[in-house]
Amino acid sequence: MYYIVVYDIKEERVNKVLKLMRKYLNWVQNSVFEGELTEGQFERLKIEIRKIINSNEDSILIYSMEQKWVNREVIGVERGDIGRII
Amino acid sequence: MYYIVVYDIKEERVNKVLKLMRKYLNWVQNSVFEGELTEGQFERLKIEIRKIINSNEDSILIYSMEQKWVNREVIGVERGDIGRII
Repeated sequence: MYYIVVYDIKEERVNKVLKLMRKYLNWVQNSVFEGELTEGQFERLKIEIRKIINSNEDSILIYSMEQKWVNREVIGVERGDIGRII
Repeated sequence: MYYIVVYDIKEERVNKVLKLMRKYLNWVQNSVFEGELTEGQFERLKIEIRKIINSNEDSILIYSMEQKWVNREVIGVERGDIGRII
């Protein structure tokens, strides 16, 4: 399954979340990661996320879909190195 | 078509982009909007975006898909008022 993760994390925790996300997904823009994960990888990522964040202050949006069903377009600068592979 | 828009805009332009996005889509998180648009609406939105941003400094990622193909999950705080309608 393909995942797009967008997060809004308090300053004191954001680097930990960034480091964690890099282990699983591709950085594409400020606070945005994308990539293919197995269900097992995704469940482990969520467990690790919950260990780091404060659920009353931080917010993580996770969109999941089959990669073939999503199109991705960039206006302006392409920040990540993922290119337009979708 | 359903759209997820994530933007990374220089300070001096971000309020204009925020105002524009609110005309077309639902705010769901810091720099993240979602919603259903017709093709015509989407094309007009892109024209208006290009009038506002500096394409050498700002970055806007636009994901498009049929709403039925995407699942959305929130960990932590649900910031937007869109709920979990996907």
